[in-house]
Amino acid sequence: MQMIKAGYIGLGKMGHPMAANILKAGFPLTVWNRTPEKAQDLIQAGAAWAESAAEVAASVDVIFTNVSDTPDVMEVVFGLHGVAEGAHPGLIFVDHSTIKPSASREIARRLGDLGVACLDAPVSGGDIGAINGTLTIMVGGEESALEQVRPVLAAEGKTITLVGGPGSGQIAKAANQIMVAAQMVAEAELMIFAQAAGADPSRVVAAIRGGAAQCWTLDVKPQRLLAGNRQPGFKASLQAKDLNIVLETARETHVAVPGTAIAAQLFNAMVALGAGELDNSAVIGVIEMLSGQSLDTAQG
Amino acid sequence: MQMIKAGYIGLGKMGHPMAANILKAGFPLTVWNRTPEKAQDLIQAGAAWAESAAEVAASVDVIFTNVSDTPDVMEVVFGLHGVAEGAHPGLIFVDHSTIKPSASREIARRLGDLGVACLDAPVSGGDIGAINGTLTIMVGGEESALEQVRPVLAAEGKTITLVGGPGSGQIAKAANQIMVAAQMVAEAELMIFAQAAGADPSRVVAAIRGGAAQCWTLDVKPQRLLAGNRQPGFKASLQAKDLNIVLETARETHVAVPGTAIAAQLFNAMVALGAGELDNSAVIGVIEMLSGQSLDTAQG
Repeated sequence: MQMIKAGYIGLGKMGHPMAANILKAGFPLTVWNRTPEKAQDLIQAGAAWAESAAEVAASVDVIFTNVSDTPDVMEVVFGLHGVAEGAHPGLIFVDHSTIKPSASREIARRLGDLGVACLDAPVSGGDIGAINGTLTIMVGGEESALEQVRPVLAAEGKTITLVGGPGSGQIAKAANQIMVAAQMVAEAELMIFAQAAGADPSRVVAAIRGGAAQCWTLDVKPQRLLAGNRQPGFKASLQAKDLNIVLETARETHVAVPGTAIAAQLFNAMVALGAGELDNSAVIGVIEMLSGQSLDTAQG
Repeated sequence: MQMIKAGYIGLGKMGHPMAANILKAGFPLTVWNRTPEKAQDLIQAGAAWAESAAEVAASVDVIFTNVSDTPDVMEVVFGLHGVAEGAHPGLIFVDHSTIKPSASREIARRLGDLGVACLDAPVSGGDIGAINGTLTIMVGGEESALEQVRPVLAAEGKTITLVGGPGSGQIAKAANQIMVAAQMVAEAELMIFAQAAGADPSRVVAAIRGGAAQCWTLDVKPQRLLAGNRQPGFKASLQAKDLNIVLETARETHVAVPGTAIAAQLFNAMVALGAGELDNSAVIGVIEMLSGQSLDTAQG
């Protein structure tokens, strides 16, 4: 079997380690990035450099994109010297960015007209998951395309789930963010609530984490907050961006999400207050501000 | 070692199986209930009947109460022929009801003046946990009192955590309800969101439940909702009652809990709409109503 030739565009905090894992798994890799410096170590490790997204697309079997938001994906795909210019029948386009489901569907339709099969494949698991190759990958698109590129995806993540047709991966990621944001806000509220009511938040968390409230958030985040650590992890600014995708999609599809709406406002507040670079669990800072008291980290 | 003599007041959906487990574990048990019929099978199994809460208190080493809300506990403790009338030095009072932390502290102070050690010990785990003796028990009070009654508590639950002084068990339970309510609302929103956006909610849940969104709620509830099952479990009316405890305590202690506030309103809506006897996961009915569409249970 001939090795699948892979291309990677977007070598940021997530994309860089994901591309590195593809290279490590032995797939020939061609990369392009808006900031070329970020590709240097990959090139030294054997990756090829292309002069544009179009040039990457023209020379590979599968092309991955991993950029920030909907306009960035649209630009790198349909902009000058973008993926569409290098499109060829048989190419598979895999977008790891988290964007609006409706945008992923538009891309699938427009690239589909050029003979390109598209998979929207947003991920969950953070930079740690990206480095360790243990990401959860939520896929929307055709099963046949997924099966062709699955060996490459397997270098990036350990759980790869086909959710449905185009856009379904984005819908799953948006749904994921509804739950994650709710847990982060609830964790923040319950810790400040417990402290203000006169209990030790760490003992409260220890008492409840094994019961109906059990979640990954309570398993991992309170001990970091109690140690005074609010560094990402997953940035609050990205949580705010992803919740905006939820709210825009909810509006487009006529769904009311009152719980998510208030969570989105609290993450918007973090960004407004200059705390967008902190971890999403640092939304506790907004609850602290609203409540006029700080989490006691002396025990942490 | 002489067997601890136990008394039980409040033989409802939770209290009855908990009392039955104490009896099965071999502790001499005296019971009283507002509705005597509910004690019949316990009496046939060897429990003694007392004519009042005071009479129970007078004849036992440890007395358990398990009633609905703060006024009910106050009545059974300080009302006519209540626990306080039968109080004696050395008695330990264990309240399994979920009430306001400030009320538990008042009880501990007033019964303490009569020589009674008090433990607030609300539980989590539902009627299934009560029947199986696998409840999570969150305890506030003196460690010495807890150690004396721990053998009896061990017949009711498998995780027994001393959170802190009087009221701390209630604080932990309230904190637990902050997280549980947030997860129930988020689960409801993400399932209707996913369906409206064009994805299969069951596949979306399958794609995200192993990642950062992981929680007991997503592990257990979606499959029940997708099968059209909205029976409790844990009643929405009790979720609404417990969130009211959170909001009252937050107001008393000057904490802002905006996420919990909106969740509380959605559970209030369930009660207002006559759906309070359904499971707390049935809050999805409010999201369905607000969104003009129902979860498709044809696949369930």
